[in-house]
Amino acid sequence: MRDTDIESLGTCAFSSPLRIPHFVPDDSRVLVDVEWTDSAAMSERASFENAGPRKHIFFDPSKTTAAIVTCGGLCPGLNNVIQSVVRMLYHQYGVKRILGIQYGYEGLCEKYGHMPIALTPDSVSIIHKEGGSILGTSRGPQDCAEMVDWLIKNQVSILFTIGGDGTLRGAAALHAEIKKRGLPIAVVGIPKTIDNDIRFAHKTFGFATAVSVATNVIHSAHSEAKSARNGVGLVKVMGRDSGYIASYVALASIEVNVVLIPEVDFALDGPGGLLSHLEDRLQKKGHAVILVAEGAGQKYTLSSGMKDASGNVKYGDIGLALKDKIEGHFKQANVPIVLKYIDPSYIIRSVPASAEDAVFCIMLAQNAVHGAMSGKTGFVVSYWNSFYTYVPLTMATGKRKQVRPDGYLWTMVKEATGQPDF
Amino acid sequence: MRDTDIESLGTCAFSSPLRIPHFVPDDSRVLVDVEWTDSAAMSERASFENAGPRKHIFFDPSKTTAAIVTCGGLCPGLNNVIQSVVRMLYHQYGVKRILGIQYGYEGLCEKYGHMPIALTPDSVSIIHKEGGSILGTSRGPQDCAEMVDWLIKNQVSILFTIGGDGTLRGAAALHAEIKKRGLPIAVVGIPKTIDNDIRFAHKTFGFATAVSVATNVIHSAHSEAKSARNGVGLVKVMGRDSGYIASYVALASIEVNVVLIPEVDFALDGPGGLLSHLEDRLQKKGHAVILVAEGAGQKYTLSSGMKDASGNVKYGDIGLALKDKIEGHFKQANVPIVLKYIDPSYIIRSVPASAEDAVFCIMLAQNAVHGAMSGKTGFVVSYWNSFYTYVPLTMATGKRKQVRPDGYLWTMVKEATGQPDF
Amino acid sequence: MRDTDIESLGTCAFSSPLRIPHFVPDDSRVLVDVEWTDSAAMSERASFENAGPRKHIFFDPSKTTAAIVTCGGLCPGLNNVIQSVVRMLYHQYGVKRILGIQYGYEGLCEKYGHMPIALTPDSVSIIHKEGGSILGTSRGPQDCAEMVDWLIKNQVSILFTIGGDGTLRGAAALHAEIKKRGLPIAVVGIPKTIDNDIRFAHKTFGFATAVSVATNVIHSAHSEAKSARNGVGLVKVMGRDSGYIASYVALASIEVNVVLIPEVDFALDGPGGLLSHLEDRLQKKGHAVILVAEGAGQKYTLSSGMKDASGNVKYGDIGLALKDKIEGHFKQANVPIVLKYIDPSYIIRSVPASAEDAVFCIMLAQNAVHGAMSGKTGFVVSYWNSFYTYVPLTMATGKRKQVRPDGYLWTMVKEATGQPDF
Amino acid sequence: MRDTDIESLGTCAFSSPLRIPHFVPDDSRVLVDVEWTDSAAMSERASFENAGPRKHIFFDPSKTTAAIVTCGGLCPGLNNVIQSVVRMLYHQYGVKRILGIQYGYEGLCEKYGHMPIALTPDSVSIIHKEGGSILGTSRGPQDCAEMVDWLIKNQVSILFTIGGDGTLRGAAALHAEIKKRGLPIAVVGIPKTIDNDIRFAHKTFGFATAVSVATNVIHSAHSEAKSARNGVGLVKVMGRDSGYIASYVALASIEVNVVLIPEVDFALDGPGGLLSHLEDRLQKKGHAVILVAEGAGQKYTLSSGMKDASGNVKYGDIGLALKDKIEGHFKQANVPIVLKYIDPSYIIRSVPASAEDAVFCIMLAQNAVHGAMSGKTGFVVSYWNSFYTYVPLTMATGKRKQVRPDGYLWTMVKEATGQPDF
Repeated sequence: MRDTDIESLGTCAFSSPLRIPHFVPDDSRVLVDVEWTDSAAMSERASFENAGPRKHIFFDPSKTTAAIVTCGGLCPGLNNVIQSVVRMLYHQYGVKRILGIQYGYEGLCEKYGHMPIALTPDSVSIIHKEGGSILGTSRGPQDCAEMVDWLIKNQVSILFTIGGDGTLRGAAALHAEIKKRGLPIAVVGIPKTIDNDIRFAHKTFGFATAVSVATNVIHSAHSEAKSARNGVGLVKVMGRDSGYIASYVALASIEVNVVLIPEVDFALDGPGGLLSHLEDRLQKKGHAVILVAEGAGQKYTLSSGMKDASGNVKYGDIGLALKDKIEGHFKQANVPIVLKYIDPSYIIRSVPASAEDAVFCIMLAQNAVHGAMSGKTGFVVSYWNSFYTYVPLTMATGKRKQVRPDGYLWTMVKEATGQPDF
Repeated sequence: MRDTDIESLGTCAFSSPLRIPHFVPDDSRVLVDVEWTDSAAMSERASFENAGPRKHIFFDPSKTTAAIVTCGGLCPGLNNVIQSVVRMLYHQYGVKRILGIQYGYEGLCEKYGHMPIALTPDSVSIIHKEGGSILGTSRGPQDCAEMVDWLIKNQVSILFTIGGDGTLRGAAALHAEIKKRGLPIAVVGIPKTIDNDIRFAHKTFGFATAVSVATNVIHSAHSEAKSARNGVGLVKVMGRDSGYIASYVALASIEVNVVLIPEVDFALDGPGGLLSHLEDRLQKKGHAVILVAEGAGQKYTLSSGMKDASGNVKYGDIGLALKDKIEGHFKQANVPIVLKYIDPSYIIRSVPASAEDAVFCIMLAQNAVHGAMSGKTGFVVSYWNSFYTYVPLTMATGKRKQVRPDGYLWTMVKEATGQPDF
Repeated sequence: MRDTDIESLGTCAFSSPLRIPHFVPDDSRVLVDVEWTDSAAMSERASFENAGPRKHIFFDPSKTTAAIVTCGGLCPGLNNVIQSVVRMLYHQYGVKRILGIQYGYEGLCEKYGHMPIALTPDSVSIIHKEGGSILGTSRGPQDCAEMVDWLIKNQVSILFTIGGDGTLRGAAALHAEIKKRGLPIAVVGIPKTIDNDIRFAHKTFGFATAVSVATNVIHSAHSEAKSARNGVGLVKVMGRDSGYIASYVALASIEVNVVLIPEVDFALDGPGGLLSHLEDRLQKKGHAVILVAEGAGQKYTLSSGMKDASGNVKYGDIGLALKDKIEGHFKQANVPIVLKYIDPSYIIRSVPASAEDAVFCIMLAQNAVHGAMSGKTGFVVSYWNSFYTYVPLTMATGKRKQVRPDGYLWTMVKEATGQPDF
Repeated sequence: MRDTDIESLGTCAFSSPLRIPHFVPDDSRVLVDVEWTDSAAMSERASFENAGPRKHIFFDPSKTTAAIVTCGGLCPGLNNVIQSVVRMLYHQYGVKRILGIQYGYEGLCEKYGHMPIALTPDSVSIIHKEGGSILGTSRGPQDCAEMVDWLIKNQVSILFTIGGDGTLRGAAALHAEIKKRGLPIAVVGIPKTIDNDIRFAHKTFGFATAVSVATNVIHSAHSEAKSARNGVGLVKVMGRDSGYIASYVALASIEVNVVLIPEVDFALDGPGGLLSHLEDRLQKKGHAVILVAEGAGQKYTLSSGMKDASGNVKYGDIGLALKDKIEGHFKQANVPIVLKYIDPSYIIRSVPASAEDAVFCIMLAQNAVHGAMSGKTGFVVSYWNSFYTYVPLTMATGKRKQVRPDGYLWTMVKEATGQPDF
């Protein structure tokens, strides 16, 4: 028996009454130590580079110019990341010329006329107390050649891009263009996704803060629902492709009765549908709280199929669609209900980072700087199995991390809400 | 080149200017996949059992009685854990007889006369909104034989003990006694340590909440310090053997100028000592914020060396000791200072869990139940490399997880505070 | 010279540069003592009855049944008021039979079948920690005769109605019907208006809490606006006829650039209009925050002129209307803007009361009970010139308290935002 | 019958069961209108000058220098007041030279060498988001002649002093010295007292914020107490001479079982004493929360009778004294208790102002400026019967506003806690 083995009282004689799709095999184990230095024996197992400071670096700090750009929607912690990149570059590595690019990739294109801002530890000393990004953001890609020209003209050696999937794909294209031209410019991504949907990242900054704020909103929806006869609180939260925020909020609040996420299809009408379940619930309890992620149930919306400035498909508003469907259904059934619809997205994503996210932002930012200074390029800094890692830009983008409909998280959410499969 | 490799711009030609004790080797890597089912090839590497529901279980739910006991100091999330254990046992496994043991291990001893409380999903439905433990707690061990007698008399098949190092050592002793008698009673530990100092646990519940509340206290100390000439804000936080809370709070707030933790010795007097550093700081900036973990600098306190009810050495009050030393020093130097001492421990540990901690508590509690129902015993449920694991009680106790004085966390704390080694 | 006179340095020689509509006359004074017992000399000045406990009471507590009903939209503090009425009646006066009427006036009509809930200090002991109303509410009047029949049938001697203008008008009608029938039933109103628009009430419960929550929303809108090029944060808050919330929030946050309230008309188009002002602001500052009360600018909405269940005219959605107008204007002008619209009403009105509102609710509730027990009827309990008062239902309703466009509050709001008259 | 009269159901036939020291007479009334312009008929009633902007002003803005000084302990809202004074002077009156005096009255004495800071709307634009005072404070009086010399030398025409009773007495002395010398310098006080104990001020800034934060601390103390067998939560809050904070917090939280304030004497020992009451409570309920104002029960402390820098008698620490007495009592009685003592003063007073306090600070600051610019001097700006007023410095100081032991507030506190007179 190994030290790490635990004891058992005996043979398992009963079948588990759990109604879940799968179980953990009895011999499933988790490695104690997941960090090691390369060895032939282990080479066949996939691994990421371990993030952190290197003994030798590629860039001469005294001659290096770094630039930081933030793109896409707001996310708690943007300013913390900016601040930490600046502090680490300036105080620890001695890089004194740091440019803040204004309004996302637009700021890297001459034609928009946005001037970069000189960033110093002093100028960023209290920005972590505010939400948003002091650099401003914008959506959408820009011409790669134009942006590389800008980097050359402004003598930028390292570009930190803070953004989501679209932004990182942009960074990958930028990196390809730089490589094609054979330039010594590092492109580093720091994943920013309030949806927590980046591949090979167990956690992304801002997510914990968002869950916390959204959980408070559920308390409000719950109070509204309980205070009316047949009260229905309907809340839409972020989650284009992945339902992590909705799932975590449902668990944290224990006040949600139905969760709808992009990964799990649902029927509205018919005997086993959402509306029929809602009818039952109102009859039994007199109120209900429904939490829907923005990407859920797109087939019920009037989505145009058009794309937004970032190249993402424009989604229909499932919140308003559900509101209409539910109100229409009960009107037809002649059952008066009181539905309150809350869309708190702009209140959630614009708050300052929580203490825990603040620390996480520092760690991500510092490791991004370590990687860049050692000459690594074309990567994102990530968090994986409790370690900070460097993951190729191409691996981190394109496919999203998603909630598995037959996995443990979703099973637990259903347990917490008591909802069936619709 | 592997898929997971990232590109580099070229050879590292410069020495890193970082003043840190060690660097990450260039070939250090982190496994992508840390979960696997036992195989001969991997057997030489240490691993933990993967937590989760099993297809077959040991206990017959209809005949099983479970009991829950909470011991030691308060920690955000205690009620969440109790609630989730009850919900999982009752709703998912069908265990209907669940006893809440009152006032820690005392409640398992006949002689104290504390009657157990019957717990149901209804009776615990909103307890997560309150701090503390609805079961009450107490400190200190009790007689094992007596407690096992109580378990037998009350037909308890599973005992969930929620507590810190002392409590878990108690659970180990209880487990040994049960084993000696050959009884089919499972003993399961759910680690509760606001200090985050349990071995083989990357994170423990309540820690994130504590960091968040303590960070707010630093804002207060900072306002006090800045608003007085030679203002000194002195804050003592939890951390008997491990300085994680102090370290995280320093990073999260960026307003702390000196952090003192148990793992790092410091000199008060002399040219490189804390007092001399403080003198410099006040001369230059006019104010300072000092954050001290309760276990730091014990040599400067009037510790009696006596032990408390839990068997832990009673620590002297380093907060008050520092207050006296600092005030005495500046009085002698004839430099008027205004020192405000804040000891917020009871305000921090008694708040409800944050949303993120709430979800974490659910996961821990559920996995504890899964393990217990499958007949496992003598273990704690833990969180390791992003997985929930089962760790033998004997491995999890005795030695604490600590901040490494030459590690990355402490280096970053020193960077954030700008403090030297004293 | 009187004791209360203050000294002056001399004659005022300069004209005030203040751009405000009116000034306080030099001899304007405020009475030190505003409470007195009736006297012939003072009888010509208007006064309210002073609220408070009376030495002798009208109702025999042992034979008295009281009922509490909450109507209309949610407001922070509803549960606090319910709790305090129950505690005071039960513990202090010895009235043990207290009925909680469900879902507003509906609960007083047999036909809806809502059963009243028996309320005791125990059953309401922690309800103040939750938002909403544990009794539920509904909108709209019900038949007076039917409700009086219900009161008789259920032997109710005192009815506490907690609601806004419509509810209090309903209470007045109920009181008239009771009087017509010559019944010894007291009808007492406790004004509930998150808009703070009740006449002869300097302050109403929930208002301070609402301002506090709404001020946080402005921080979010500000972060959104500043983080985009030509970012516009547009927030709609409560305020059907009175712009108090909007005005206070503008003062408290100092981050609002334009406030629009029902009391002050505004032009959208043309040289001095809102859109032209916004254009200037975006050109100069790059972002703007606009705060609009729901009753403002109704002429720009597609208001149907229909009435809602409470008999109030249904207002068009000025928030969405402004959103369209602004976006349309800048699209036509070919100036790309990024507008974020936030409608936080349901998040604001459903939170628990702040500590200050909690104390205020207690005081209102207790004084309502004192008045009722002494046999007073047809009144609301109010707060006027720092005293709790009893005001006839007919005086408190019908006309709203409003922000005076030429008064000090609005002048200060314009100073804080820097906005002109549009 | 007057319009303002309310109806009654008939004669009061029963004696009130209320156990309170006094009742409101039946003919007690409250004036509707308390503001009027002087008239012979009313001259015999005491009144204060009504605060607000005057049509003509005394000081020529273009030649005026104003100075602001903050003294004594921190209070939420100090920065808001500073900010509003600066904004009003600068933007509305056109006074461009505004000096921020550093570290209280010390900053007005040449010998300390504190240089004044030039204040502009820009330099104070976000200071309201931080607690404390950006000017710094100090305790204690300074030489009046020296300070007047400084004002002359720096050409100061208006001095705003923000502070408590001691500070305002200092301002009165300063005003007397200025008057003696016949100088055209206005001295204006803005009362700062977290205790809310200034005479002729119904409310002072920071009080509502303090009550709110302290109420949260009670939740913590309550959780600690309930989670231990014979748990006692003991909390000390501010309140040297007046128990307003303690009283309001007890009402707001409904979790306090005993409140002790300076105005009400209490016996510790003996049959009707606090300790005996506590013993009963623990026996019945198993826990208790005690809230003590710092000035209560001074006879039980080891007060030295010495005075602090501000000239206030140094109080003994009643919190620690009670802790010792209670622990000693139960040790002797051989009843194990678990007492947690919390002293949150520095956490309460150093937070930013709440939204409602923020608005209040603006109003106070603006009215202070209006009064000063019109040449008034030797006054404080106050809030009385819902009006802002000017009260002579000499009237506002010396005697404190206190909770009346036989008044309504204290009666209600006793009702809320269920405590007897000790």
